[in-house]
Amino acid sequence: MRNLNQDTITQAVIERFSHTPDPRLKEIMTSLVQHLHAFAREVRLTEEEWFQGIQFLTDTGHITDDKRQEFILLSDTLGLSMLTVAMNNDKPAGCTESTVFGPFFVESAPEYKNGDDVANGATGLPCQVRGTVKGLDGTPVPNARMNVWQADAEGNYDVQYADLAHAQARGVLHADDQGRFHFKTILAEAYPIPSDGPVGRMLKATANHPWRPAHLHFMIEAPGYQRLITHVFRNRDQYLDSDVVFGVRQSLVADWEQQPDGSYLLEYDFVLNPEK
Amino acid sequence: MRNLNQDTITQAVIERFSHTPDPRLKEIMTSLVQHLHAFAREVRLTEEEWFQGIQFLTDTGHITDDKRQEFILLSDTLGLSMLTVAMNNDKPAGCTESTVFGPFFVESAPEYKNGDDVANGATGLPCQVRGTVKGLDGTPVPNARMNVWQADAEGNYDVQYADLAHAQARGVLHADDQGRFHFKTILAEAYPIPSDGPVGRMLKATANHPWRPAHLHFMIEAPGYQRLITHVFRNRDQYLDSDVVFGVRQSLVADWEQQPDGSYLLEYDFVLNPEK
Repeated sequence: MRNLNQDTITQAVIERFSHTPDPRLKEIMTSLVQHLHAFAREVRLTEEEWFQGIQFLTDTGHITDDKRQEFILLSDTLGLSMLTVAMNNDKPAGCTESTVFGPFFVESAPEYKNGDDVANGATGLPCQVRGTVKGLDGTPVPNARMNVWQADAEGNYDVQYADLAHAQARGVLHADDQGRFHFKTILAEAYPIPSDGPVGRMLKATANHPWRPAHLHFMIEAPGYQRLITHVFRNRDQYLDSDVVFGVRQSLVADWEQQPDGSYLLEYDFVLNPEK
Repeated sequence: MRNLNQDTITQAVIERFSHTPDPRLKEIMTSLVQHLHAFAREVRLTEEEWFQGIQFLTDTGHITDDKRQEFILLSDTLGLSMLTVAMNNDKPAGCTESTVFGPFFVESAPEYKNGDDVANGATGLPCQVRGTVKGLDGTPVPNARMNVWQADAEGNYDVQYADLAHAQARGVLHADDQGRFHFKTILAEAYPIPSDGPVGRMLKATANHPWRPAHLHFMIEAPGYQRLITHVFRNRDQYLDSDVVFGVRQSLVADWEQQPDGSYLLEYDFVLNPEK
């Protein structure tokens, strides 16, 4: 394996990975090498561009920590996240659709009871959220565990505040035995994804805005059903057709209705897909 | 741009990058998105595998610092570095071939004079290196600036020792006005690339060894000529046909001849390619 040139190296690298014991890893490495090389060959990547790529990935790694995940932002903005979600969540009609997970989920968020205020001091207009978790046939799913999280009125998630020690606008709830849930929070607003890092530079260089339409994140788990990771998007948001992470599905768009007292109300039911 | 599915998202993402002002960046982003999505679609990447990929890149970023470049190691071991070198260094026959840059080059290495010992305390068997820098017609190229660097007898470059404050087995030399250079150093030995990080885990999981055949790095610069980045490889090394970074070219393999006093001598001439 000497004197590899641009025409022979791809096959040599694939050969090198051909002894991988795990067949799935072998399949992934083989496909990755083929497509990575095909990209470099198609654009005739220069050595300087190769180094800029190395530097971009290095910067992406260095800005990533336990509270910021720039690689997920990169995957989101290149459409890879939504492609992966779409491929893996081909559900029967009637089920709530999935969308991207995003980089701001936190394990072990505080537990709340139905009726509690998950805002916990986050800035924003007062809002109530209520609905039912159901199966495909309309039967309520009892006691589903629901993670909810969202940005505040400034467009930041709690983890983006370096000196904030407690969770805000984030929590774990449980639907009751009739599948019903209700909680207080703040009104979801459109916000730009963090743009002070490599992904922000990429968006700027490609003349793209960094905005996401207003949304509220949900992760819903119940025994016998597939885990649902999704958002509810706010109707009439100006970014619904240009979401920087390609996540909008029409079935997830809902009205947040303003109430006589000025607060908002979102009513939304979720339909879970049975486990196979 | 709502309701994107696995069949429509790639075109939507490409559309998003279609307003990129710099035409070269637009070309690169378009090709990157196509090949990245094609990879994910071909293997039907699962959400768990997607997250493992995010975690792998995160780990690669976190182990990378100003002395360790795991992204270059990753590029090297996936054959991307050598592919890029091969595409960009298609030179006339007779020129010294290029090979991978590697992750261990350091800017501003100490300056030495011809005859000096660049080992500077590095462990290894004593060795002399000499030769001439020439043009394609055999005419000497005077006063070329030459960066040389190599691993020590333990298989480590100086930058891999956390508590070593000075350069070892690394330096900048200048050929004389007849193109001649000579310096002392240590014998090049085969060594494994760093295997305590994500790239090491990838090699292990794919049943690949981490070894590179013994080599001495050169970067040679002279006005009017293309910069040459290459190694000289040591003949009869057991890893010449399985270099973990795919860098071996037969024309770069040379004998390190053992001398009566036990030391080694490498004689090697470099032929530079004129600038276009």
